[in-house]
Amino acid sequence: MKKVLVLTSGGIDSTTLLYHHVKGGDEVQAITFDYGQRHKKEIEFAQLNAVALGVPFTSVGASFLAAILSGSSQTDPLVPVPEGHYSEESMKATVVPNRNMILLSIAIGAAIAKKLDYVAYAAHAGDHAIYPDCRPEFAKAMGAVARKCDWRPITLLRPFVKMSKAWIIGHGKELGVDYSKTWSCYAGGSLHCGRCGTCVERILSFKEAKIEDPTTYQDPEFAKQYDK
Amino acid sequence: MKKVLVLTSGGIDSTTLLYHHVKGGDEVQAITFDYGQRHKKEIEFAQLNAVALGVPFTSVGASFLAAILSGSSQTDPLVPVPEGHYSEESMKATVVPNRNMILLSIAIGAAIAKKLDYVAYAAHAGDHAIYPDCRPEFAKAMGAVARKCDWRPITLLRPFVKMSKAWIIGHGKELGVDYSKTWSCYAGGSLHCGRCGTCVERILSFKEAKIEDPTTYQDPEFAKQYDK
Repeated sequence: MKKVLVLTSGGIDSTTLLYHHVKGGDEVQAITFDYGQRHKKEIEFAQLNAVALGVPFTSVGASFLAAILSGSSQTDPLVPVPEGHYSEESMKATVVPNRNMILLSIAIGAAIAKKLDYVAYAAHAGDHAIYPDCRPEFAKAMGAVARKCDWRPITLLRPFVKMSKAWIIGHGKELGVDYSKTWSCYAGGSLHCGRCGTCVERILSFKEAKIEDPTTYQDPEFAKQYDK
Repeated sequence: MKKVLVLTSGGIDSTTLLYHHVKGGDEVQAITFDYGQRHKKEIEFAQLNAVALGVPFTSVGASFLAAILSGSSQTDPLVPVPEGHYSEESMKATVVPNRNMILLSIAIGAAIAKKLDYVAYAAHAGDHAIYPDCRPEFAKAMGAVARKCDWRPITLLRPFVKMSKAWIIGHGKELGVDYSKTWSCYAGGSLHCGRCGTCVERILSFKEAKIEDPTTYQDPEFAKQYDK
C-alpha cells in the first residue's frame, strides 16, 4: 500500500488514475488546480469522483497564474481555442507556460505537508508529441528533483505513461469509472464541443477502445474527418 | 546582455542580485511572491528597490500556499518562530515544504511568457547546510528541468552560490545598494527582532564584512553569543 497524492483534473486520464490507485488498495488523496481555466466543469467532476470514492480532496485556487502566464488560450479569453486534431501545430496555443512543473511542484509540496510518499499523475503515451513538459526527458528530470527537494523524498508515479488513451478507457471501465462524469472540452460550453483537440481525441479514443462513448457532443460529426 | 528574470524577496541577497544584474547591463525584470508570510515588509522592500532601479516588477499573490503547505512557522501563525542561530535543528520549522521548487517553477513560467532566457536567484554559500532545496544537487536537478520544460529553454543562474553573505554585502555596497531598504526578520514586528535565525545571520554578516549595519534591531545584544 502506497501513500499517494493523485493529481486530478476531471478528465478521462486522471479520473481513471484516481480509480487505479483507490481500487489498487493505496491510501489516496486527490489534488486539483483552478489555474484560471475557461470553465470550472472539469474541477467539479474532479471533486465529484473524489467524493464518490471517499478520497480527501484539495482544490488549489491558483487562478493568479492566468495573470502571470498570459498568451495561452486556456487562460486568456482573447486567444481563440484552436479547432482540429490534437497533434497539429496550432495546439501549441493551448499551452500554459510551464504548467506541469508548476502543478507538480505544488503537489510535491502538498504531499510533503500531508506526509505522503508518492505523487501520481496521468501522463500517457499520447501526450509527449505535443508538449515538452509531457516528454519522458522532462518527467525523468522532475523525478530527480522530487527526490532532492526535501528531507522527505517524493517519488513521482506515471503508471499510464506507455498506455494509449484508448487503453486507459478500457482499464477504467474494468475499474468502474463512469465516463459521463468526466470532462475534456477546452471550449467552455455546456456540452462538449466535439471540435477542439481534446474533444476530437476523446471521440476517437472511445471508438478505438470499442467502448460506447457516453458523451453528448455539440458537433458529433466534426471528428470523423480525423478517423483514419 | 542577458534577458533575466530576478527572484527578489526584499532581503540582502536578492536585492544585491537585482543590482548585480541591472548594474551589469542586463535586461532585467523582477518577480516576488506573497506566499502567506507573516508580514508584507519584505515584499514592500522588493518593490521599492525594483522601482528605484526602473525594473518591471511582478508580485505574485500566492497566499493560497499557506493553506496547502501547513505546518511551517512562516505561514502558520500557530507555529512559533524559532530563535537562535540559523544552522540549528529548530530552524527546520521555518521551511515551507518545497517552497523553492514552487517559486522557481512559477518564475520559469513567467520568464517563458515574458520571452526572457534566464531566471536568477540568490542562492549563496550559507544556504545549503540547512535546506535540501538550497543544496547544489537540487539546483543542478532544477537546472536540468528548466531546460526541458518548454520550447524556450530557460537557464537558471545562481551567481552568488559560492559566496558568503558577508561577501554579498561587500559586493552590494560597491553596486550602491542601500541595505536600510532591505528586510530579513522572520518575526513580523515593526523592527528587526535581532533574535530569529535570519536576524542573527544578518548581524554577524555585516560584522564579518566590516561594513556598518544600518539596521535597527529590537534586541541588538542577543546575536553576540553566536559571534565566535
